[in-house]
Amino acid sequence: MRHELFYWPSIQGRGEFVRLALEEAGADYVDVAREGEGGMQTMLDLMENPALKRPPFAPPFLRAGRQIIAQTANILHYLGPRLGLAPDSETNRIWAHQLQLTVEDFVVDIHDTHHPVGSNLYYEDQRPEARRRAEFFREERAPELLNYFELVLQRNSGVGGHMVGRSLSYVDLSMFQIVTGLRYAFPKLMSRLEPDIPGLIALHDRAAKRPNLAAYLASERRLPFSEEGIFRHYPELDGA
Amino acid sequence: MRHELFYWPSIQGRGEFVRLALEEAGADYVDVAREGEGGMQTMLDLMENPALKRPPFAPPFLRAGRQIIAQTANILHYLGPRLGLAPDSETNRIWAHQLQLTVEDFVVDIHDTHHPVGSNLYYEDQRPEARRRAEFFREERAPELLNYFELVLQRNSGVGGHMVGRSLSYVDLSMFQIVTGLRYAFPKLMSRLEPDIPGLIALHDRAAKRPNLAAYLASERRLPFSEEGIFRHYPELDGA
Repeated sequence: MRHELFYWPSIQGRGEFVRLALEEAGADYVDVAREGEGGMQTMLDLMENPALKRPPFAPPFLRAGRQIIAQTANILHYLGPRLGLAPDSETNRIWAHQLQLTVEDFVVDIHDTHHPVGSNLYYEDQRPEARRRAEFFREERAPELLNYFELVLQRNSGVGGHMVGRSLSYVDLSMFQIVTGLRYAFPKLMSRLEPDIPGLIALHDRAAKRPNLAAYLASERRLPFSEEGIFRHYPELDGA
Repeated sequence: MRHELFYWPSIQGRGEFVRLALEEAGADYVDVAREGEGGMQTMLDLMENPALKRPPFAPPFLRAGRQIIAQTANILHYLGPRLGLAPDSETNRIWAHQLQLTVEDFVVDIHDTHHPVGSNLYYEDQRPEARRRAEFFREERAPELLNYFELVLQRNSGVGGHMVGRSLSYVDLSMFQIVTGLRYAFPKLMSRLEPDIPGLIALHDRAAKRPNLAAYLASERRLPFSEEGIFRHYPELDGA
């Protein structure tokens, strides 16, 4: 089945976690809002369609046949088994999903370093608040969450393995994105923290070399990081 | 099977969404950290246990046999079908879960009205930031999210029905908690918004009268709202 992904066309954002899974699996999909002139309008029209019984609150969402599925972690929970990127048993899938929901928490923390007051305002209008929030992020949340994921990896498989079970899952791809994104947004912080997370760094490096993922990352389909997305590089938020 | 819930013993917090489901279903469960003197230590020991292959990042978590499940929405996704509080088909369960994940987003917004800078600081140390964040919440996020849930209810069943399908699910219980909690924390805001959400208010009122839920709410097991939890009443954050 051809999947249709709906997400903002100019940023990686939350949609990127879904794109990575679709790309690694070589899935047949359309990134609707990036398709031609009317793609963005198609997405907005669908969200506002009064005939839609089960409207999504926000992008990203996926259309699979007649079903529309929103919430990043929920999309991956649905897609994972269909793309061969989730473990086999229900118990293991719940565990993978639990980790992905913790990734979502991390994403909120990362986003809120530059938008602690509200996503309706520009970063420039919440700079003092952002400085305080970013300090909390650098000193507490980022090390806490990265060390947690490192511990999960080490307890599952040691440095050379996967986050869940014995094969690649969407959780590994999400960890790749977290490491890559944090390196872009907080290079100083990451050079301080990386020695403590050798497993995640090795996992990131192996993922980047997988043929499908490498081809995607080198393509125009991979949007660049920018100061419009979740991972933003503002040097003043990266600490001394 | 007897379930063990692990959550902070003195607040409703995120754990309350799970407690409501267990109580409404009349489930056999233990709220471990609230059991006697050592309950809290039991929870902390479990989280730090180096033999745990799949440690939770934070409470709440549920132990069901040998499985430990964390992340509130994930716990409800697991428990729902087992407690008779989720729809039957996989498609409908994914939709219920999607709504619960949107409730989780709402909870983050509610929490961050009083903790926009960081959960490591007291509210008193982030008051100016909280005022700005709360304004964004009152003017944008709260009406946006409440109106969304009202629309979902109306499109599913009209004012007199349920959030998903034709019978009670954990999503209905979560909407009850959101309405009750917002009335406690933001009474002025809610008196302004309630005329726009007649379905959610009716759903809240019907839920409160269900025998199991009413018995729970009247019992000592239901912790009071307080300025330690997610829903906090700070008049200065409730607007003019």
